[in-house]
Amino acid sequence: MKKVVIIGAGFGGINCAKELSKDPLLEITLIDRNNYHLFQPLLYQVATAGLSPAEIASPIRSIFSKKSQVKVILDEVTDIDRKNKKVITKSGNLNYDYLVVACGSTHSYFQNPEWEEHAPGLKTLEQATEIRRRILVAFENAEKEIDPGETQKYLTFVIVGAGPTGVELAGSISEIARQTLDEDFRHIDPSKTKIILIEAGPRILNMFDEKLSEKAMEDLKKMGVEVRLNLRVKKVSNEGVETELEKINANTVIWAAGVKPSPLGAKLNTPLDSSGRVVVNQDLSIIEDPDIFCIGDMARFDQNGAALPGLAPVAMQQGRYVAKIILNDKNERPRKKFVYFDKGAMATIGRSKAVLQFGNIKISGFIAWLSWLFIHIYYLIGFRNRTIVFFQWAWSYFTLQRGARLIIDKDWRLKK
Amino acid sequence: MKKVVIIGAGFGGINCAKELSKDPLLEITLIDRNNYHLFQPLLYQVATAGLSPAEIASPIRSIFSKKSQVKVILDEVTDIDRKNKKVITKSGNLNYDYLVVACGSTHSYFQNPEWEEHAPGLKTLEQATEIRRRILVAFENAEKEIDPGETQKYLTFVIVGAGPTGVELAGSISEIARQTLDEDFRHIDPSKTKIILIEAGPRILNMFDEKLSEKAMEDLKKMGVEVRLNLRVKKVSNEGVETELEKINANTVIWAAGVKPSPLGAKLNTPLDSSGRVVVNQDLSIIEDPDIFCIGDMARFDQNGAALPGLAPVAMQQGRYVAKIILNDKNERPRKKFVYFDKGAMATIGRSKAVLQFGNIKISGFIAWLSWLFIHIYYLIGFRNRTIVFFQWAWSYFTLQRGARLIIDKDWRLKK
Repeated sequence: MKKVVIIGAGFGGINCAKELSKDPLLEITLIDRNNYHLFQPLLYQVATAGLSPAEIASPIRSIFSKKSQVKVILDEVTDIDRKNKKVITKSGNLNYDYLVVACGSTHSYFQNPEWEEHAPGLKTLEQATEIRRRILVAFENAEKEIDPGETQKYLTFVIVGAGPTGVELAGSISEIARQTLDEDFRHIDPSKTKIILIEAGPRILNMFDEKLSEKAMEDLKKMGVEVRLNLRVKKVSNEGVETELEKINANTVIWAAGVKPSPLGAKLNTPLDSSGRVVVNQDLSIIEDPDIFCIGDMARFDQNGAALPGLAPVAMQQGRYVAKIILNDKNERPRKKFVYFDKGAMATIGRSKAVLQFGNIKISGFIAWLSWLFIHIYYLIGFRNRTIVFFQWAWSYFTLQRGARLIIDKDWRLKK
Repeated sequence: MKKVVIIGAGFGGINCAKELSKDPLLEITLIDRNNYHLFQPLLYQVATAGLSPAEIASPIRSIFSKKSQVKVILDEVTDIDRKNKKVITKSGNLNYDYLVVACGSTHSYFQNPEWEEHAPGLKTLEQATEIRRRILVAFENAEKEIDPGETQKYLTFVIVGAGPTGVELAGSISEIARQTLDEDFRHIDPSKTKIILIEAGPRILNMFDEKLSEKAMEDLKKMGVEVRLNLRVKKVSNEGVETELEKINANTVIWAAGVKPSPLGAKLNTPLDSSGRVVVNQDLSIIEDPDIFCIGDMARFDQNGAALPGLAPVAMQQGRYVAKIILNDKNERPRKKFVYFDKGAMATIGRSKAVLQFGNIKISGFIAWLSWLFIHIYYLIGFRNRTIVFFQWAWSYFTLQRGARLIIDKDWRLKK
């Protein structure tokens, strides 16, 4: 019985395991550091108190509970021994015949890891609840503050990076300030909140058509978000952000600029591209090892002269493709090359505001927003999550409230 | 304008503030360490992965957003200065004309605070998610373990204390093991899980009629929970629990035995009873100070020769009663004495299993369970929480699944 080990239960890993599990004779092991599959496109809604963590996470075990040939292991992979075909984890070794590496990416502070403390990124549920805590605590502290300068510092939010995550965070914080918390404070006026979105490039949402970028920019301005383009961050500290032009006093800074692939790629002893992604063959196997595949955000695959972007549809299609290769390999058929079917891109700016492009279709506004909504509901795993998220959104749409306004103390144990 | 300060936004504090806010001329300040009101009776469902934290918590500010005379402050009270009528918080002082102290209780390890690390109690959301993490991680570690003794240790859960919380936890862990996780593991058989409920007294649920205690005991046995009565715990460590009779190797121990009132009672410089509760007058004011009231779990009030129990209905009635006293005091009417209207008690053991007593009515089984369900939904604050909890329960009832099976790493920041 052939053994397939999949590292990572993101969009790539889950889809690969699902497809592989159609063959009852394979032995499939899926390893992840978390016990859940995370629906990352909605993580910003956890960070901005719209959804609860469990609403965008599904236990990996329950996804595969009926597939007895799929073994799920909660563990951390520390190394890969290509020579002996072994995966080394914190608690043991695993043999493989085929290995699928799908560990995604994390945020990158370029040469400045010390910025993380002051400007957390948004890649995990822990980070999302920490960002939620910081946003909500900032308003609470502003309410108690007497000094007007300090109050304004608490009410200033800076988001670095204007890709979809940065834009979605900026829009959501604006909605929290100007709608959700509107009547909740007695001293401060939350609508005076300053939200500053800093982008090093010449426009926001740069993977979208220019017209859509402009539309999103207008939407953000209407929502009271200040967008600063062509601006580089020089320093992040507990004072706020220093750019080439000015010093912005801000209590809350969120990092949405730049990601780097999982460090596990470097353990494969295979060529990486300049940003650390694993260079893969036309069949997504790594160079000189047809039994190891690398997919999703951490793989470098070029199509039509450009590297595929780090998007969920890429990882999902690659996961299913690799599964088919492995299933066919058993029957010794030749391998077809991977072709990405471009599903376009979408981003939401706020209530009834989104941009969407798919081939030549480029739309914005309510229709784009509705499409965003239904596509995200559709891809969420499980009937329960779909229904609850749909209900939360309907409720938020009509009441302007948010369902998860909790300040959870991350250090509760340490303080006692 | 009279100033009323309420410390604590539990059932007592929230109901007091709501009733007081009917008078637009009072200045009401509600202080809490958390930004949410917690529906404690359902906390065990968060600890056992049935509900998400946000589903049983409502932001205090949003409860009072339309009542501009109610000011909400996120702060911790450190002292009370009765002479100058001031409440001292971590970030400042507050003057009061009337003070309502409603800070509830916390769990008590009697003379053994070092047990907390090994056997967390269940009073806060942070504790609930920590218990949830421990339960879920125990199954994950058991799945990876090779040594059969260690595996059994991971699959042994001890709950100390067989009041409603202990019984509800034991029943829920049994359902997780025997229903939810049934098909999710490949090495271990979760139905082999040992769940041991230890009670120092002669029966479980001792505030209930003896027949209901027996019924609950039978239900627990059917669910595979071992109940040990008349047994005292001598030691809790990372090995498990030592009792007078034996040593139980257990990876997960939960403390549901004994509570103690908030330490703030001692800051009032007024008589306390032997368990540390503030002794109050017939009108719930403290002895010799008619402007300070103490309500809920931390107050000692006798009725029909017995102290009122630490239950939500007691706190709620006391909160509303004190509000009326304060409203009437302004008009200088005499104070009527507080009378508790006994709403009975209920506890749930598992799916379709509960006990309920109200006056002479004593029922168990499906009807009791349905009543438990609807009463809890009814008292949950907010349309959104009610709807979502109702949906989660319906879903769990039919699928035997649980909606919040997340292992969230409490120390994620420390490890990096």
